[in-house]
Amino acid sequence: MSGRVLVTGATGFVGRHVLPALAARGFAVHGVGRAPGADPRIRSVDLLVPEARRALIDEVRPTHILHLAWDAEPGRYWTSPTNLDWVAASLDLARLFAAAGGRRFVGVGTCAEYEWGAPRLDEATTPCRPATLYGAAKDGTRRILSAHADTEGVTFAWGRLFYLYGPGERRGRLVSDAIHALMTGAVFPTSPGHQRRDFLHVADAAAALAALVASDVTGPVNIGSGAAMPVRALLDGLATRIGGAERLAYGARTLGAMEPPVIEAETRILTEAVGFRPAFAGARGLDDTVAWWRARGTASA
Amino acid sequence: MSGRVLVTGATGFVGRHVLPALAARGFAVHGVGRAPGADPRIRSVDLLVPEARRALIDEVRPTHILHLAWDAEPGRYWTSPTNLDWVAASLDLARLFAAAGGRRFVGVGTCAEYEWGAPRLDEATTPCRPATLYGAAKDGTRRILSAHADTEGVTFAWGRLFYLYGPGERRGRLVSDAIHALMTGAVFPTSPGHQRRDFLHVADAAAALAALVASDVTGPVNIGSGAAMPVRALLDGLATRIGGAERLAYGARTLGAMEPPVIEAETRILTEAVGFRPAFAGARGLDDTVAWWRARGTASA
Repeated sequence: MSGRVLVTGATGFVGRHVLPALAARGFAVHGVGRAPGADPRIRSVDLLVPEARRALIDEVRPTHILHLAWDAEPGRYWTSPTNLDWVAASLDLARLFAAAGGRRFVGVGTCAEYEWGAPRLDEATTPCRPATLYGAAKDGTRRILSAHADTEGVTFAWGRLFYLYGPGERRGRLVSDAIHALMTGAVFPTSPGHQRRDFLHVADAAAALAALVASDVTGPVNIGSGAAMPVRALLDGLATRIGGAERLAYGARTLGAMEPPVIEAETRILTEAVGFRPAFAGARGLDDTVAWWRARGTASA
Repeated sequence: MSGRVLVTGATGFVGRHVLPALAARGFAVHGVGRAPGADPRIRSVDLLVPEARRALIDEVRPTHILHLAWDAEPGRYWTSPTNLDWVAASLDLARLFAAAGGRRFVGVGTCAEYEWGAPRLDEATTPCRPATLYGAAKDGTRRILSAHADTEGVTFAWGRLFYLYGPGERRGRLVSDAIHALMTGAVFPTSPGHQRRDFLHVADAAAALAALVASDVTGPVNIGSGAAMPVRALLDGLATRIGGAERLAYGARTLGAMEPPVIEAETRILTEAVGFRPAFAGARGLDDTVAWWRARGTASA
């Protein structure tokens, strides 16, 4: 695959894993993030600044974009009005990209675009009826970007992320907080944990997005495992590896009223059309994640 | 009704009729437009400039917004990338409005948000599946604004305009161009004209939007007559009043491939919940429109 791909959110949880996956597919990779560190492929750009977006597209002249950047601050992002800023920045980025001759735009959405409740969330048949501002902002952005791409002759795909975990996950999220508690001897208050969720190792999600960028598949594509597991089974799996099962306080929290019994991705498009296969399914993903936290330690977490 | 209402697009086709309708309902009315002329209630503001939006909300501190402004340049607006700028400006306006304590946001959409084909387009049951960038931009904006309003405690309604005609319509549109041709002795090449469309006099559309602002109805509301008529009947009605029926060249143009046989608004919400009744139904609307063009003349049109 030849082309110059611009990856936004390149220093984020998914972004860090995406750059090598795209490079391995032959792309010239240009990342942008807010804290790029030492990676020479990543520039420091605030995408919420219009002039910065324009300069970025002028300099990189990408043929492809994988647009990961968004506000994802745990606990805030579901309802934060900054979602509106990211809609506007995303639309402007797409407009600049098309005007500069860009060919393929891949955006990143969420399982929260769907109306929850169906046993499997399917791109073709499950209605999009988001219950949150975050979900609505992603859903609306996708609808507008898709029509814009059609008008401009750009191909457009939209990877919908489900539940991610793995190395580099920031605190304030389920798996990172559970591991931290188990490793430090703290109690981990959580829901009864019977709800089933579709978990995917972050490196698999990144590889799936890289495969989507390199494909000619258009429209929404679920990025999931296709096999939801009880949250309880996931946490028990962590405790088996780390110890401290007795400190997983199931039922100490109630499950949110909006949380359905199951959120599971239909993955036919991902496996058949995009051709993706996970490398960290099941036990291997948990092993890898616990190993990463062991190597890193919890002192600074 | 007490409150300070900000009307964007106040100098546009609908906007000019909206200001008196809102004032008659007891609102303190503040309009913004790009060419305000002599009306002291209207300020000149370019809503695509972020600082101008912020200053506007700071100065007016509106309790209500009726957001009409958008790119509506005939022939261009269906596919223009400026639709994306208007999405961004609309979201930012809503955000500033909510942050400044605004209570009710009424946006303006289009029958082009719907999937065309159903005999009557119904807010509750007809799917939104726009076929154009303009329709998608309006549809996406509505979805995001609605979720944002829920999050911020603002009430939100969305008036969907169908086919408008009447005094002040700019050239490049069906009725204004047909009247111009009939009055100047030119041939008017048009489709066979059997398609039925839901036409509403612009003053009625404005009165309906004013009633919607003053109501507590939420969600999408069709702003239409509820009774579509064949385009041919409308044009024949103009020729009856002006003369020149033989210059209406039906069939000289083919109807666009996307154009369905009928576009008609279900108006139950508008009539029952909002309580609106048209003042210019049927013959009266055509009489009024032709009288306006006669008084104005065609020289500068």
